[in-house]
Amino acid sequence: MEKIVLSGMRPTGRLHLGHLLVLENWVKLQEEAKCFYMIADWHALTTEYENTDEVLQNIEYLALDFLAAGIDPEKSALFVQSEIKEHAELALLFGMFTPLSWLERVPTYKDQKEKLGEMGKDLNTYGFLGYPLLQAADILIYRANLVPVGEDQLPHLELTREIARRFNYLYGSVFPEPQAVLHTVPLLPGIDGRKMSKSYKNEIALSSTPEEVSEQVRNMITDPARVRKTDPGHPEVCVVHTYYQVFYPEKVAEIEEQCRTAGIGCVACKKQLAVKINEILEPLRERRQEFLKGKKYLEILAEGQAKASRAAKETMMEVREKMKLR
Amino acid sequence: MEKIVLSGMRPTGRLHLGHLLVLENWVKLQEEAKCFYMIADWHALTTEYENTDEVLQNIEYLALDFLAAGIDPEKSALFVQSEIKEHAELALLFGMFTPLSWLERVPTYKDQKEKLGEMGKDLNTYGFLGYPLLQAADILIYRANLVPVGEDQLPHLELTREIARRFNYLYGSVFPEPQAVLHTVPLLPGIDGRKMSKSYKNEIALSSTPEEVSEQVRNMITDPARVRKTDPGHPEVCVVHTYYQVFYPEKVAEIEEQCRTAGIGCVACKKQLAVKINEILEPLRERRQEFLKGKKYLEILAEGQAKASRAAKETMMEVREKMKLR
Repeated sequence: MEKIVLSGMRPTGRLHLGHLLVLENWVKLQEEAKCFYMIADWHALTTEYENTDEVLQNIEYLALDFLAAGIDPEKSALFVQSEIKEHAELALLFGMFTPLSWLERVPTYKDQKEKLGEMGKDLNTYGFLGYPLLQAADILIYRANLVPVGEDQLPHLELTREIARRFNYLYGSVFPEPQAVLHTVPLLPGIDGRKMSKSYKNEIALSSTPEEVSEQVRNMITDPARVRKTDPGHPEVCVVHTYYQVFYPEKVAEIEEQCRTAGIGCVACKKQLAVKINEILEPLRERRQEFLKGKKYLEILAEGQAKASRAAKETMMEVREKMKLR
Repeated sequence: MEKIVLSGMRPTGRLHLGHLLVLENWVKLQEEAKCFYMIADWHALTTEYENTDEVLQNIEYLALDFLAAGIDPEKSALFVQSEIKEHAELALLFGMFTPLSWLERVPTYKDQKEKLGEMGKDLNTYGFLGYPLLQAADILIYRANLVPVGEDQLPHLELTREIARRFNYLYGSVFPEPQAVLHTVPLLPGIDGRKMSKSYKNEIALSSTPEEVSEQVRNMITDPARVRKTDPGHPEVCVVHTYYQVFYPEKVAEIEEQCRTAGIGCVACKKQLAVKINEILEPLRERRQEFLKGKKYLEILAEGQAKASRAAKETMMEVREKMKLR
């Protein structure tokens, strides 16, 4: 069976180092599967409907971040969700036979609604409840059988499988039941040790300049007990150390030893990390420049849209035939 | 301000004499407004998702009934809802900012759910809850400011107005707040005196032959107390009399007098009614033949689709611009 992958991210801002770990999985999947990578602008609306000022800008950021990270337009279709109207059509059709209870019991639904409710967002909307239904349409319209997701997204994928089964049962077999490609990426803290968040400005963006990276690494929170350079450090409470573990694993043992014995100061330790991160980001910077030239990424989005559109239209022809519609 | 009308019916079978009264209003509106008349196949799915065998056939029936009743393709756009994907797109966007409570409080929602639930239909679905949202998209995508509806549909139209207001408030003015064109059509009973229903086979279809009409009028329930022709009748309990009131008003007084005084027998009374109904249906039959020839109604649906599509695409351009989407 041909392997088909669908995944996507919402255009909510520049991607950061934490996303890089996810994107590395996407890049690898290009070698073994036909991949559809989507900029989920409609999904962004489910929570951001009151402020859409930045959606267009964020779509461009996301496209460039994807391409910089190694999404290859020759291999994959990179496209903007809202350009493929068939996602809305299929979600509408799925809605006809999807019990409200299936949507209400998705664990993230109540959690998110409460969490974002505390932040002043009213998410008691029809669209927010239907989020996982639109997601099922996103996936199934390409008949994707593999979906790279984090653990928190597993219930959504289970719902997608239920919807595929129910459609196939009611109208005849059209859809695969997609499997998760679980990526267990380590949770990367912000440079201040808190959760990474745009509002905290504690992220290292993939599009950072070398100077910005050095600056942000320099500002990382270290062991507060290590006041003087001669004090021994405790790597287990140090953000810099966490970043070493993720991005510089070959150096971890050595740097840990040096830290605990006060053999290296925080300044020098951070400098080495900044050099390493810049080394990792260098090929991304080159690719970003390449795709920015003459706004080449816009052509790529148009090509991706054409590919996605063909596949989506083909599926919808079969869906309508099976449902005995026009 | 230009008058724009949107109305539609679900393709659930052949139309009958009761529908004719509604369609007469639609036909009149063609003289003063730009009219969009829709065959609402997606709406049919909200309750009929488990059995879609007859949707295609019913779309043809409905198109022919509309045309036979006098919907003029030169004046109005007659089209199938599901051909205009933008209805789904706009409904999706509306869903983002529509509180669930607005949908849950629509009076028909709980009523219908219970009523159809008793008939074994499970309507606890996302699509059924979203029915009035799709209806709002149907209306607003053509910026219709006039909507011919029955009294039972007024709460749906109120919701449409609320959605138009909320959109205009959040993103800028795009939509009018449509007004109802209330048609107060008399409730026509079936020939057996019960509610007209396909399952009772007690309807007189607009597409009936003259012989079928005569046969069904002959079978109408009359005053059960009038056993012999010489017994005086009670028009107020007679189905034939109700039909006289609606379709033969100029004759009502005379026939009522004759009935009460046993001056006319039921057979003769029914014959006159059958003649009158056939007279009313005769121009419909002629038009039906005309539109059936070479399947002309299919061309007309294609033309209507093109008109509707242009209008819908234009609105969606403005919607996306106002929402700052692509």
